[in-house]
Amino acid sequence: MSADLATLARMAQKLRRHSLETTAEAGSGHPTSCMSCAEIVSVLFFDEMRFDPKDPSGRDQDVFVLSKGHAAPILWAALKEAGAIDDDLMSLRRLGSPLEGHPTPTCPWVRVATGSLGQGVSAAAGMALGRRLDGSRGRVYALLGDGEAAEGAVWEAAQFASFNRLDNLCAVLDANRLGQSGPTMYQHDTAVYADRFRAFGWDVAVVDGHDVAALRAAFAKARATSGRPFAVVARTLKGKGVSFLENKEGWHGKTVKKGEELAKAVGELGDTGVTLSLEARRYEPAPARPGGEPVLDPDYRLGQEVATREAYGTALAKLARVCPDVVALDGDTKNSTFSERLKEAAPERFVEGYIAEQNMIGVALGLSTEGKIPFASTFACFLTRAYDFIRMASYSRPSHLVLCGSHAGVSIGEDGPSQMALEDLAMMRAIAGATVLYPSDAVSGERLVEQAARTAGIVYIRTSRPKTKVLYANEEYFPLGQSKTLRASAGDRATIVAAGVTVHEALAAHEALAKQGLAVRVIDLYSVKPIDAETLRKAASDTKAIVTVEDHSVCGGIGEAVAAVVAGFAPVTTLGIREMPRSGTPRELLAAHGIDAAAIAAAVRRALGR
Amino acid sequence: MSADLATLARMAQKLRRHSLETTAEAGSGHPTSCMSCAEIVSVLFFDEMRFDPKDPSGRDQDVFVLSKGHAAPILWAALKEAGAIDDDLMSLRRLGSPLEGHPTPTCPWVRVATGSLGQGVSAAAGMALGRRLDGSRGRVYALLGDGEAAEGAVWEAAQFASFNRLDNLCAVLDANRLGQSGPTMYQHDTAVYADRFRAFGWDVAVVDGHDVAALRAAFAKARATSGRPFAVVARTLKGKGVSFLENKEGWHGKTVKKGEELAKAVGELGDTGVTLSLEARRYEPAPARPGGEPVLDPDYRLGQEVATREAYGTALAKLARVCPDVVALDGDTKNSTFSERLKEAAPERFVEGYIAEQNMIGVALGLSTEGKIPFASTFACFLTRAYDFIRMASYSRPSHLVLCGSHAGVSIGEDGPSQMALEDLAMMRAIAGATVLYPSDAVSGERLVEQAARTAGIVYIRTSRPKTKVLYANEEYFPLGQSKTLRASAGDRATIVAAGVTVHEALAAHEALAKQGLAVRVIDLYSVKPIDAETLRKAASDTKAIVTVEDHSVCGGIGEAVAAVVAGFAPVTTLGIREMPRSGTPRELLAAHGIDAAAIAAAVRRALGR
Repeated sequence: MSADLATLARMAQKLRRHSLETTAEAGSGHPTSCMSCAEIVSVLFFDEMRFDPKDPSGRDQDVFVLSKGHAAPILWAALKEAGAIDDDLMSLRRLGSPLEGHPTPTCPWVRVATGSLGQGVSAAAGMALGRRLDGSRGRVYALLGDGEAAEGAVWEAAQFASFNRLDNLCAVLDANRLGQSGPTMYQHDTAVYADRFRAFGWDVAVVDGHDVAALRAAFAKARATSGRPFAVVARTLKGKGVSFLENKEGWHGKTVKKGEELAKAVGELGDTGVTLSLEARRYEPAPARPGGEPVLDPDYRLGQEVATREAYGTALAKLARVCPDVVALDGDTKNSTFSERLKEAAPERFVEGYIAEQNMIGVALGLSTEGKIPFASTFACFLTRAYDFIRMASYSRPSHLVLCGSHAGVSIGEDGPSQMALEDLAMMRAIAGATVLYPSDAVSGERLVEQAARTAGIVYIRTSRPKTKVLYANEEYFPLGQSKTLRASAGDRATIVAAGVTVHEALAAHEALAKQGLAVRVIDLYSVKPIDAETLRKAASDTKAIVTVEDHSVCGGIGEAVAAVVAGFAPVTTLGIREMPRSGTPRELLAAHGIDAAAIAAAVRRALGR
Repeated sequence: MSADLATLARMAQKLRRHSLETTAEAGSGHPTSCMSCAEIVSVLFFDEMRFDPKDPSGRDQDVFVLSKGHAAPILWAALKEAGAIDDDLMSLRRLGSPLEGHPTPTCPWVRVATGSLGQGVSAAAGMALGRRLDGSRGRVYALLGDGEAAEGAVWEAAQFASFNRLDNLCAVLDANRLGQSGPTMYQHDTAVYADRFRAFGWDVAVVDGHDVAALRAAFAKARATSGRPFAVVARTLKGKGVSFLENKEGWHGKTVKKGEELAKAVGELGDTGVTLSLEARRYEPAPARPGGEPVLDPDYRLGQEVATREAYGTALAKLARVCPDVVALDGDTKNSTFSERLKEAAPERFVEGYIAEQNMIGVALGLSTEGKIPFASTFACFLTRAYDFIRMASYSRPSHLVLCGSHAGVSIGEDGPSQMALEDLAMMRAIAGATVLYPSDAVSGERLVEQAARTAGIVYIRTSRPKTKVLYANEEYFPLGQSKTLRASAGDRATIVAAGVTVHEALAAHEALAKQGLAVRVIDLYSVKPIDAETLRKAASDTKAIVTVEDHSVCGGIGEAVAAVVAGFAPVTTLGIREMPRSGTPRELLAAHGIDAAAIAAAVRRALGR
């Protein structure tokens, strides 16, 4: 059903017209960034890609990722012209319209939110990998700009794709020469991009991005390439097709004015009356995937010493055995996070991301769009590397995306501050809709992994390096948004709120204070977000003071979360990391930073004026 | 004074011995990662680099960055053998010793903290650029591992260095084949790394990294290369020199046991009795740099409408005129952050970082070590891209490092969530020692830029997209750790704490409530961290309720910071972003997320039960 070349070229002009008109109506947006890729989008949507305009699921179809998200208007235009959406294009950027300023899954054809540049290829690689895991034939196309090729994450994705021989992945680089505030680094020197993609293991075609025949030929070559991904490096002109916009500086993110200016621009586009009726094109269905519920049975003895990071790995391996959708990714730390246990249990579902955390999160997100339940782990401090990817992943509203950060806090000891996550709770709590879990022992560790697999959206699990005593019976259940009150009596004078390693310090402080005749309540806040406001407020009412203690910065973590909930009910003392840590033993550092049992007991006494 | 090749080789063995012995004593560390680079370090420190072992300032000398920070023990060993430090090598990783598990500036020879991989080349590029700006001749050497070459940030740094023709920069890639949890992506295929460096514009030599003659020749070639940076790709063996460690898996981050095992390992190294007396080698002194104090005079009218991001640019340009150390960096957003105003005022001190935020921060940090006062700006949301770099920069304890994030919050409007920073306050507050500033008008904007230039360490300035009314007189001063009480009366029933755009909403709410006979206090919390605890506690005592309002996530920002300070004094209602935003107009979004004047007034009435 291929359209002829002249029709594809005319469709490109029509897409330009939509881009100009909808952004002019909205009064903001990036029409010229759409115009450079009009032929690319026309050829992809109306010739190359096999998809069913009535089915946005992507199942047994080719899928598309607009990495250069600011070109959203041309994506909406192409979807409309393809009969895939029936939204009013003129609602672009209006509150309530799925046609947002940058793509989000509010439009069902958008698999991942884009708009922070340099992230689309990682997600596309994850989709391509997911398809290979499932034996599904649909190809994945990602369109990126030349400006965003400066992002190192693009090259992380490039190396991942070639290393994993993802020949179902095709990237198109729209080299339109002009960035937001001036020319891009290499302008129209397309050889630079071609050399780099080749050096990163890709096959490459360099084409005139406004030549529909050349584009079609390049995509055919990409489709025929096996064993490696393919990059189409397209030389284009920003604002192409309108004399006063084309290849001109000063027109990034700027719309033409409605009225005369718009009429002049549209007039220059010539005949835009073409319509194309797309018929559904699908691949043969992929094999059905076996189902399986994520359930597990912890098997520990009370008092046994097990690190929560180890419990994470154990639980992950158990989940993988019963739930075929579970996959794990790691950043060359699998022997420390214990994700290697999944690799032993189900090697085909372990993805080694090497030391490239941004790409690891992007790939995990892409896998999620293919129906997987990805668990991505590394040292918690190194998840900071991927914060922008995590933020954008939240806007992608993934069915599942579990992150695990191990080696949290100063309790790692001698390796020093570079390896200590002290910001991860703040970082993850600030993500809208994210769930933040923090086990204190092996049973809660396993149970929270189980919860994570059952919870929609982004779930963060924080694990610790040191071994800690098992506190809970294997049957204990850990619902989100609740907590465990480990010590309580009618005479409690204060409440200690702790999580993770500090739960054990809090219990020791409880014991020490009890010997001094001071009864205190101890709460294990394993669900940091959502938080158990009810129990905390009751504790604040029942007792005279709250002392929080966390192996994390005092800013943005457990202490402030608790304070916001109990303010007005009781004063809150927040114990946590205030100064830059140094190398030392775990015990020395817990003491030096005032979060060990002695410091907690002292804080309780101070809070009670004793 | 060059040492002969045999002596350099023996020094390498001695450095191996130190690495084995000190990590065995510490009981943790990465001896095998040190052993692969022993010849590289020996040739660099005892032959190639020109430096004065008595002067760690780096002035008129070559400097070294250990990007593969886990090889710290061999750095300490080399410094000790060179006569540069007199610390006991056996104090490695002990609390209080400057010889930390990964390098930090507690040792004066460490210019930037390392240990999160893939960051050293960016910092080194910043140093190289700073030297060129100052006409200083010392070269910069960065040693990285093959595992960390998977980090995209390495390639951001590579492209930056070649784009800026930094021929005073030399990177050495220690390709020892083995990562933490298994082989690296390309193991001993050194051609991959050579191809990539070449594709990114570098000259390259591939050498046997245990051949001191080959290394010396490569460094000579690097020194003679002009117009581009130089990479030495060295094929090495992890654990080289000891039969049971050499090229063996399972020995990452593992020490040999004291006693028999250590004796056997040391025995295999042969003669390690060499000593070398290094004499000072320096370049001719760089030209003296003119001084200049960062002072400025805002020039606005009360009520004038100016965006704080524009005030930032205006202030930056003024500072550049009076203070030659001020430099600006941006990530292709200079026309939005207004850093382009500095470019107009002092083009030679503007660094275009293109869309590569990690490298931008790394370069800024490197510039800081050369005595600059760098201001690095982009959209606040894109600073999340560089969170790991920011975290590590804090451990580098820079004299100055100012970050500016513009376009904060939902008040940007139509571009949608990908462009809205909702996590930046949480992220920056969690950094130990960081200062977080948030101007609400042009005068405070300029004054806080001035403060930032005078404040040591990391300072974050959050600016807004919309124009806001000038609230303060040009003479107003904004000390860190204080706040401005904009409305107050003896009869205040509640206190609204706001910052940035919400200050203006708070003032409107105050007016609306006044009309209803309800007096409320309004505080502009321009210094988010350090926070003005005294004023907040007084307000909490004086009034019955606190309502905080921020264009940011309710987690980790202003609301929780205030709650932690006033808990016990008054209940706190935190208004902020709780749900994922969409595209819409600024006013629609402020209303939809409950942070406009009407929502604030309603919250005050609710808090007072009215």
